[in-house]
Parts: sequence; structure tokens; C-alpha cells
Amino acid sequence: MFFSGTMRISDEGHLLIGGCDLVKLASEYGTPLYVYDEELIRKKCRLYKNAFAKEYPNAEVVYAGKAFLTTAMCRLVDEEGLALDVVSGGELYTALEAGFPVSRIYFHGNNKTEEELDLALEVGVGRIVADSLMELEFLDEIARQKGKEVDLYLRVKPGIKAHTHHYIQTGQEDSKFGLGISDGQVLAAVDFVCSRKRLNLKGLHCHIGSQILNPKPFRLAARVMMKLIAEIKSKKGILLNELNLGGGLGIRYTSADEPCDFDSFIRLLAETVRQEAGEMNLPLPKLMIEPGRSIVGEAGVTLYRVGTIKDIPNIRRYVSVDGGMTDNLRPALYEAEYVALVANKASAAAKEVVTIAGKNCESGDILIKDIKLPELEKGDILAVLSTGAYHYSMANNYNRNPRPAVVFVRDGRADLVVKRESWRDLVRLDCMPERFKKYQNPV
Amino acid sequence: MFFSGTMRISDEGHLLIGGCDLVKLASEYGTPLYVYDEELIRKKCRLYKNAFAKEYPNAEVVYAGKAFLTTAMCRLVDEEGLALDVVSGGELYTALEAGFPVSRIYFHGNNKTEEELDLALEVGVGRIVADSLMELEFLDEIARQKGKEVDLYLRVKPGIKAHTHHYIQTGQEDSKFGLGISDGQVLAAVDFVCSRKRLNLKGLHCHIGSQILNPKPFRLAARVMMKLIAEIKSKKGILLNELNLGGGLGIRYTSADEPCDFDSFIRLLAETVRQEAGEMNLPLPKLMIEPGRSIVGEAGVTLYRVGTIKDIPNIRRYVSVDGGMTDNLRPALYEAEYVALVANKASAAAKEVVTIAGKNCESGDILIKDIKLPELEKGDILAVLSTGAYHYSMANNYNRNPRPAVVFVRDGRADLVVKRESWRDLVRLDCMPERFKKYQNPV
Repeated sequence: MFFSGTMRISDEGHLLIGGCDLVKLASEYGTPLYVYDEELIRKKCRLYKNAFAKEYPNAEVVYAGKAFLTTAMCRLVDEEGLALDVVSGGELYTALEAGFPVSRIYFHGNNKTEEELDLALEVGVGRIVADSLMELEFLDEIARQKGKEVDLYLRVKPGIKAHTHHYIQTGQEDSKFGLGISDGQVLAAVDFVCSRKRLNLKGLHCHIGSQILNPKPFRLAARVMMKLIAEIKSKKGILLNELNLGGGLGIRYTSADEPCDFDSFIRLLAETVRQEAGEMNLPLPKLMIEPGRSIVGEAGVTLYRVGTIKDIPNIRRYVSVDGGMTDNLRPALYEAEYVALVANKASAAAKEVVTIAGKNCESGDILIKDIKLPELEKGDILAVLSTGAYHYSMANNYNRNPRPAVVFVRDGRADLVVKRESWRDLVRLDCMPERFKKYQNPV
Repeated sequence: MFFSGTMRISDEGHLLIGGCDLVKLASEYGTPLYVYDEELIRKKCRLYKNAFAKEYPNAEVVYAGKAFLTTAMCRLVDEEGLALDVVSGGELYTALEAGFPVSRIYFHGNNKTEEELDLALEVGVGRIVADSLMELEFLDEIARQKGKEVDLYLRVKPGIKAHTHHYIQTGQEDSKFGLGISDGQVLAAVDFVCSRKRLNLKGLHCHIGSQILNPKPFRLAARVMMKLIAEIKSKKGILLNELNLGGGLGIRYTSADEPCDFDSFIRLLAETVRQEAGEMNLPLPKLMIEPGRSIVGEAGVTLYRVGTIKDIPNIRRYVSVDGGMTDNLRPALYEAEYVALVANKASAAAKEVVTIAGKNCESGDILIKDIKLPELEKGDILAVLSTGAYHYSMANNYNRNPRPAVVFVRDGRADLVVKRESWRDLVRLDCMPERFKKYQNPV
């Protein structure tokens, strides 16, 4: 068991976040419900910014929107002075809707569509992170049509792949993302960009993985990228002075996860870049990172109401809740593990080992296998922790279950940031062909 | 390569379904696009009905809505004379919206909520399939409050678990669904129902798995269930005369899949039930099955537009399309395999092995690994086959990508049955807390 951010237990044994009683929130907004600890999100943003302020002269923290993005989240990110990474027209549209400053938006993706690039160039996003030679040609064409210029980065495969505690170094990474170094794709892309007056090469970008708990592979990536900047300078005579090292820092889902603290992580990046720059006689580039999960992951909990409880003698007790793989796809997708607390019995001792099942008609819809909890009854409110990243953003309407509401809590106040879907919403886009209305079954 | 239903190649080498040119559909409705062969769906419905008509006196085919459900699909199911299995309030709402006859609706689920049961009892669905003792108590309570009666089935674990070509028989299945036989749960549930005047026990239900290609485990399940009917008759003096053997018949995703034909499947069920009834001197029960995937799976294709093509020398060619895990979760979720055709080059010879990548910012967003196709260019229309079941129904807005439109095609005519989501739709339920509008970043 672990508590993040402003999570506390009240005198009556209820779980509180941001001074709000989760049991009351469940009643007021219904369940399932995504609850975000706004103070914790802001704190994480500042921890990153402060760590950079101590360690590096010219840096930017770019929030990776795919972890969790709504108009309110965009506004929060702006208020905290972070930049924003978007990966689709829909994310860009959301940021624009929120009034996010377009010059601080970075646009990623391995296959941005024409419609998406049109919008990005039209509004003038800060940087487009170009992923392939083909995309550069496409960008040049659209820029010419629109009479616009494009400031861009090249997405590079640094040949390092990191996951959790492990990483591998590969000569040529087999990935749909980015341009290879050893096969000459990066240098070819530099040549292409330099030959087009509407394309302005501003820097490089890389990303080595997700939920990385050991920061060492980031050092390797920083070295590779600084060496690449030196190579581009010496071979092409171009000095790139922006370097985005991507995201991927892990969070604590269960007590077994021990994530690296932000200070150590940023210090390691800053030291590495400084050292490499010194050795290769390069000026310090503007340095960027793109955290998503590590900003919002631990700040989110999902509340469920306990429904059916079923004992299978000598095997297990299944406790079913009113959500599941529709609001949390990660157990089914990655066998991800979670911890939960009983919001209305937060002081009670854990007594029984149960399995938390979702309500969807699929055997694989299990949220947590074998967790020790206080004795559960129908109507109890279960809070699954660390569900702030890739939960709402991956939520779906399987079984035609409506998606939950999202609430930000802070200083005893709760604000709805996404309304709950209704049954009505589910059929909103359904159409009935005219001929079906009068269709007669043929004999 | 295989063609299903009305799929043909036109003189100009385009793929046709229902007499509609898929290349034209992609232009008219945009991509990604789910296209359904309406004739094939209707044909599958009739194949099941006809097979029963030949083999068994009293049977019903119940379409499992979770595979794919919209108001138009409900209407089609009704027109073809099938009953409907729903697993949530949202599916029930969709059926009601379509005017589906409520008496032919079966309501499933391991954790139906109060709101869902309220609606089900209010409108009077045909049968509620009760999943646990706790649910029976809950049903009785709601029925009393509403002054209604409930006709129900008991969901039974037959102790047989089947997947694709394999099956296992277990004494006591470890599943969140249903009531155990050997541990006495079924008989206890029968006792409970008989003690409540508002609950009417009408029959039994079981379900042994998904994407089952070998029908033999269904015979085992039918035997177990018939023996259970005999046991309930002898021990409790109650003759149940409705038996629902669930769904699970597999389809062809790739040429490697060889599904059982419907006639053999139904004959096997009918023979088994008839034989068991004869041996145990029972009248033939009304027999039901619940096909979902085998009705709609092969009738659906997903159209994508080819975007970025990227060569990684000596490794692979990545061809990115404008959809991915947002519209087809099955490769990421189950490592499911698919076959694709190039709709605008349907007569061209397969020449190169490529990997089809989605557009989502996730390394795992790969639709098909290593498929031999005609040479691909940007703008080509790729048709991924057998995407009619569990694709639209599991679609999500990850990366804030809008969900595709759905079109039914038939006799040269295309009808929109679900409109494409717009970027505007993505922020429709977003709210901006008042304090965010004026929030000043603290120093």
C-alpha cells in the first residue's frame, strides 16, 4: 500500500484526495469515476521545471498529451509553463480549443495525415517532429501550397530500446518510428531539409521507451544524440541547438515499482549533455524532455462501486465492479498490475485475498488478480491507484458501456473536467438507412 | 487470400463488396472506414435458422450484440427473425432505440448494475440470464420494488473451456461468470428462485469460449447441460424446457483458420440434445445458440489509406495507414492475425512483404506483421478482412483519434449506419472549471 500526493484518510476512515471525500465523489458523480489530484499534477510539473532550473541553463518540459488530454488539462499544462506534445489532429484540436499557445506545441506521429498537417501548418505549431523522408517531402509540398515555413525536428532512432529495468542497444532498431543513424537516413534527411527553403531544421528528437524505472539508458541516448549533433555539424556544417530526449520515465503502479526521482533523472541528463558538449566543443543545446505518465499517472485514481461477489470454493472470491477493461485497458493489454484501496474502509485491516473483476462480458476482463483487502460488501467504493495515464485516453465503449466522468480535485473542491457519457450518447452517431424502416423480410 | 460473401474484383481491378467499389467508398466516406457486407450478414443469419429448421423442432438463434451493435444492426437482426443478446444497459438502450421487440431480448452479464436491471425490468426484457446467487437476491428485491415478475435463466459453468482447436474439462471452472455445478451453486440457485414468487426459472444458459473452430466441445457442453436438466428434474421436481448453449463459433481471419460449417455445428448440437433427451426420458427443450462473431465477423472489412512508407534496410518495410489500434484492438490485445487486400490493386500480383503499421504513437500499434502484397504507394486503399466483430465495438479515441464511420453495402448501394466522429466530437464532453479560466500561476 502506498499513498501519493494529497491522499489521506479522514477521521471516519474514508479516503480523501485534494481534501475531497472519495465516497462522496462516487455518490455525487457516479461510478466508475476518474479522480485526479490536481495539486499532485502541478507538483510534478514543478519538480521537473525546478530540477532543470538547478541543473541546466536552457530547458523545456513538454507534456506528452497522449497520456491524458482534455481541454482543462491543456489549460493546466499552460498555467504550469510546460509545452505540449500532440500526436494527432484530435489532440491538436483539443489544445487549440483550450487556447493553448500554439508556438509551444510539438506535433509528433509516424503517419500524420494530410488533414492533420494542414491544420498544424495553418495554425503554425511550434515544431513538427518529422518521422520519415517521405513525410519531409509531404511537408515541403504542403508548405509550398500554403506559402508557409515549417520549423521541424527529425525523429531519430538512437538504437537504444528501454523497458522498465532493462534496455537493449541495437545497431538498427526495428521500429515504425524515426530515422536510422547507421543506415544514413538521418544525414539524408538533413540534406533534404537543407535543400528546401520552406523547411527549417531546428533540432533532433528521440524516444527510447515507456515506464522506464532505471534512468541509465537515457544517458546512453543523450550521448548518441550529442554525437549525432557533432556529426551533423562536421559533415554538413549545420549546428543544431535543440535536443528533445523524449519521455518514458516510469511511475509506481505497485510497491514493487521504484521509479527514479526527477532530480536524479534531470541531473543525469544535464551532466551527460554538458560533458558531451564539452568534449566535442559544442555549445549547450536547448534541452527538452517529454514526460506524460510521470506527470499524471500517480495523480489519477479510478473509483468503482462493488457489485456481485462470488465465491468459488477453494479457488477464489471474485468481486465484480461497475467498470473494467472499458475504462482500464492496461491489464488486458499489457498484463499491468495495480493496487486498490477501499475508499469507505480506508482504515480497515486487509483481511481477504480477492480478485477484482470488471463488468464486461469477457473472461479477460479482470482488473486485479489476488489482492488483499478489507472484507468487501456490495456498495463499497474501490479506488484503483495510479490510473492517471493511458486510462481515460484509452477508454472505449465495448459492451456499449458509457465512458466515466473525469473530476479534478483540489483544496476540498471538485470540478468536472469531462462529463460522463450517457446511454443516449452511445447512439448519437447511429443512423437508420431509409430502406430499413420499411424493409420486408424476403420469403 | 480468400474472398467472403459478395466480395468481387471489378473490371478495373478494384475490390467490390455488395456491388460497391471500395475505392469509391473510401473517397466518399473517408478512411478508416468499416464496411459491412449486408447480404453476407443476412445470409449467415439464415444459414443458422435454416440449419435449425432442418434439425430441430423448437429453436432460436440469438445474435450476440457485443460483437457489433448499432441501431441499424438491431433492425437487421429483427428483420431476419433472430433474437438479441445484450450485455449492458447501453446495448439494451440501443435495441430499444431501434424498436427491437423487447420480448426477444436476453440480458447477460456478471455484474449488472441497479440502473441496468431497473431498465430491463421496466421494459420487460424476455429473459434475464442470472449469473450469481447475489444477483438473484438483487433481482428479487428490484422485482418486488417494481411489482414485476422476472423470467430468468441461470448461467451455468459447464466445466468445459474451449479455445480455437483446444478445450479443457475442469471440475470447477475458475471464471467470473456463472454458477458451478459440482459445488452445488446451481441447485442452490434453483432452490432460491423457487422460493420467490416473482422469479420464474425458465431455463439454463452456458458459454464455453470464443473463436472455437472445432465443434466437439459444444457436444460435451450440451451433454453436461442436459444431464443438469435431468438432475434438476429428479432432485427438485422442476422441468426446465429452455436451453441456451451460448456462442463461440469461430471464423476465418486468415487462410489458416478452418471454421466448422453451420450445418454440421447445428446438427451436432441437435443430435446430442436429442440423444440425451431420449436416454433420460426428457422432452426436447427449446434450444438456443448465441452467435456474434460468426454472424458479422467475416462480413466486415476495414478500409485504410496508405500514408508513410519506410524502408529499414535488410529488416523490413513499414507501411503506415491512417488507423490502427484505435479501430482494431485485437492485434495488440490478442496478437490476432489478419489478411489484407489492396482495394485499388485487387488484381495485381503480391510482390513484396511489408508490415502494416497503425498511426498511433505506440510501438505495439502494428496491424499486420509480414504480409505479401502488391507494391504499395501512398494513397492506396488497404482493405483488412474479417474485421466485422469486436472492432467497431472495441474502438476507442486513443491519441484522440476520431472513430471511423460504419457503412452497410448491398446491391450496389451504400448506407451510413454510424457517422464518423469529428474532432469537435472529441471535446464535446470536456468542461473547463471556472477557476481555470482565471487561474494565476502561483509564484
